[in-house]
Amino acid sequence: MSSDPMAGNRFVVQYYETLTTSGVRLFLARHDALVVRLGGESGQWDVQEVSDGNLNLVFLVHGPAGSVCVKQSLPHVRVDPNWQMPLDRTEFEAAWLRRVAQIEPERVPVFLLFDSDMFVLVMECLDNFVTLRQAVGNGGDAVEPSRVIAEFVARTAFFSSFLARKLEDVMPDLSFFAKNTTLTRITFDLVLSDPFRPHCRNHWLKELDRDVAELQNDEAVLLAVAYLQQRFLASPQALLHGDLHSGSIMVRGDDVRVIDGEFSLYGPIGFDCGLYLAHLVLAWAAAPSAPRRAHIVDAIDIFWAEFRKAFLALWQAEVPGGDLCSRATFSVYPSLLRLEQEQYLDSVFSDMVGFAAAEIIRRIIGYAQVTDFDWLQTTSEKAERQRDALVFAANLLRKAPQSPEEVSARLRI
Amino acid sequence: MSSDPMAGNRFVVQYYETLTTSGVRLFLARHDALVVRLGGESGQWDVQEVSDGNLNLVFLVHGPAGSVCVKQSLPHVRVDPNWQMPLDRTEFEAAWLRRVAQIEPERVPVFLLFDSDMFVLVMECLDNFVTLRQAVGNGGDAVEPSRVIAEFVARTAFFSSFLARKLEDVMPDLSFFAKNTTLTRITFDLVLSDPFRPHCRNHWLKELDRDVAELQNDEAVLLAVAYLQQRFLASPQALLHGDLHSGSIMVRGDDVRVIDGEFSLYGPIGFDCGLYLAHLVLAWAAAPSAPRRAHIVDAIDIFWAEFRKAFLALWQAEVPGGDLCSRATFSVYPSLLRLEQEQYLDSVFSDMVGFAAAEIIRRIIGYAQVTDFDWLQTTSEKAERQRDALVFAANLLRKAPQSPEEVSARLRI
Ligand SMILES: Nc1ncnc2c1ncn2[C@@H]1O[C@H](COP(=O)(O)OP(=O)(O)OP(=O)(O)O)[C@@H](O)[C@H]1O
Ligand SMILES: Nc1ncnc2c1ncn2[C@@H]1O[C@H](COP(=O)(O)OP(=O)(O)OP(=O)(O)O)[C@@H](O)[C@H]1O
Ligand SMILES: [Mg+2]
Ligand SMILES: [Mg+2]
Repeated sequence: MSSDPMAGNRFVVQYYETLTTSGVRLFLARHDALVVRLGGESGQWDVQEVSDGNLNLVFLVHGPAGSVCVKQSLPHVRVDPNWQMPLDRTEFEAAWLRRVAQIEPERVPVFLLFDSDMFVLVMECLDNFVTLRQAVGNGGDAVEPSRVIAEFVARTAFFSSFLARKLEDVMPDLSFFAKNTTLTRITFDLVLSDPFRPHCRNHWLKELDRDVAELQNDEAVLLAVAYLQQRFLASPQALLHGDLHSGSIMVRGDDVRVIDGEFSLYGPIGFDCGLYLAHLVLAWAAAPSAPRRAHIVDAIDIFWAEFRKAFLALWQAEVPGGDLCSRATFSVYPSLLRLEQEQYLDSVFSDMVGFAAAEIIRRIIGYAQVTDFDWLQTTSEKAERQRDALVFAANLLRKAPQSPEEVSARLRI
Repeated sequence: MSSDPMAGNRFVVQYYETLTTSGVRLFLARHDALVVRLGGESGQWDVQEVSDGNLNLVFLVHGPAGSVCVKQSLPHVRVDPNWQMPLDRTEFEAAWLRRVAQIEPERVPVFLLFDSDMFVLVMECLDNFVTLRQAVGNGGDAVEPSRVIAEFVARTAFFSSFLARKLEDVMPDLSFFAKNTTLTRITFDLVLSDPFRPHCRNHWLKELDRDVAELQNDEAVLLAVAYLQQRFLASPQALLHGDLHSGSIMVRGDDVRVIDGEFSLYGPIGFDCGLYLAHLVLAWAAAPSAPRRAHIVDAIDIFWAEFRKAFLALWQAEVPGGDLCSRATFSVYPSLLRLEQEQYLDSVFSDMVGFAAAEIIRRIIGYAQVTDFDWLQTTSEKAERQRDALVFAANLLRKAPQSPEEVSARLRI
């Protein structure tokens, strides 16, 4: 047996217990609004555990009138009970959900309840949605969702940033999310550290041995990563989702929702952009045909173009009101405003490219990998595709592309 | 009469009252440790009000056995009772003092007490010290204090940064100091905004009218300032003093102390460096003779050289232990470490230069000006000297110097 899973937890765990399907029923029955939403008696509710992520328990509950999704943190990593972890991550997810709902209510599940004793978050159940990863993996459209996510990132970033808000409004949020150290640590270690050195959590196909050795000994790569580490920890431009891969996005037709904001933090806007971009690149590398690859490259082009357009449109609007926009409202200096915007977006672009590279790499050689390559029959096929992604990513770090066209040109080879 | 000075104060002001000399006596008498330190009876204590800053009340108290300094926030700006202000700034000063005392105990007054009801900070009284501004203005040495302050900034910055500490240790402090919004607002407005646009708080000698108009309409200057605003708000590299001018430094012989950390925040290290540099430049512009000017340029050279040396020495040390240093400890990559360090220090240097420029400008045309030029007899003499500083500063923003040698070359003309 491993040691007490609650050991080291800095929270009052007096009332905490891990939910089971019957525990979910009892929990929900205590909240009138949820009972009304579900309808009928608790005995009539259908409770399914669907946890498929690494960290938490997730239940979907259906009653005669409606449904809810129940998410609870565990005192350890779900897929590794020996890896202990504080419980407060649902609190940050709940806070993220409520803030983002004020900006993009149609792009997130409706927030219903957060219980700080049980570390339980209850939200709208997204019935008949699938993750974007599944949709794209099954040949679905990648372009329209990328357009939607681009606008989502632009809007949530802009409206939580110093561009749209006074420092008196930003700082309390920045201060709050700075406490999300458990999951910030995970990102720092798993995305920006471990993959770039020998570490027991790394693993990869043996066919990639040489690529990995090269990568981990390339000073240009390591210098770029050191810089990304600084950007990640010390560039709080906006409230980020923090884990915006295609498994954190659910789609049903043209309805696109972002879930799982437990990694949220104030950080560089290019981090969210970069994670999204990385998973498009992974889908590109795993795609079954040339036209399918081309389709995903289109999605990549659209993503940045749309992000840029949406972000600039918000910044251009008459009175954004934030501290970093005051001068912009002076219509006396239109050319200055243009220069400021280019400077800002150039830096978001270069962050995006760098973080995308790190994310691609860690999803191929790090602890938590992606399922995109699973459909391939042989390891040598898999390794070949993964090498495509790995080489592309390493080259982003070795020689940063200067324009979005350069990014897609490198993929259209 | 102005409105209620407590209006808008977000703190419990139930127990708060503004101290008078007799109030100071009663306050101190309630604290045994302070009574012991002062010695004798409270009636024997000499209490002098010495407030000469813009914001707070300061009393020096002497008893038969020892002395203390008592600092209290007012619910308004001391020199402008109509400008209301929350009381919590002493709390941040107390927090700064305690953190810095762990790193540089010999460079700050000893922390004695903080009373959160009265917003009173009690610390060691620096008997027979004068401010560095006075010392240098009176022809005293500028070189040795600059060496000391360079090391002070290097050490406090390094040890509070992600270079020396794990993110789990930095984030709680970052989170706490992010709440110092009142004084962060003051800096943002008075240093980085108002002077660069027409604003009623600005004022200057009429001889400088043309220079000010030019400055406020120069797009290169305004673009540089927009970037500095971003750096200031969203680059929490280390715990800064936040107001490190020569009036926040006290000297007695070779004993140098830093006081008045109420503006403390997590920010770009170059901000503290830049403020210090700015006041050397102001002293240079106001200096009575060519050899005196040369002496101050020497101090400027020494300041950056010493800062750089001290900072690198800390980073080079075997096990700094911070998240941004992990790779550095790998002795396998000495050339990588060197590149990382250059990249980091280049950015501190360019921040320093930019913030120095903004600070010089605001001290000549903004709300709170410096006394350095007061000894000059005629306004035209003053204006000429101030123009020297103003032009130097504007040129720093127009065309950033690429090396410390370039900075001093521009001053040695
Ligand atoms: N609101 C919802 N409605 C319907 N299904 C949901 C909802 N939220 C989550 N799910 C399902 O539960 C799964 C796990 O959710 P989620 O990604 O939030 O969990 P996690 O433990 O935080 O995972 P990760 O390892 O990605 O952090 C999702 O892939 C999805 O299938
Ligand atoms: N510990 C101390 N010992 C002796 N004198 C002190 C001490 N602290 C402050 N003083 C004196 O009080 C004066 C004002 O102190 P300080 O600068 O901290 O006040 P302030 O109101 O915050 O000013 P500012 O406008 O610079 O913010 C100093 O210039 C110095 O002369
Ligand atoms: Mg998750
Ligand atoms: Mg002060």
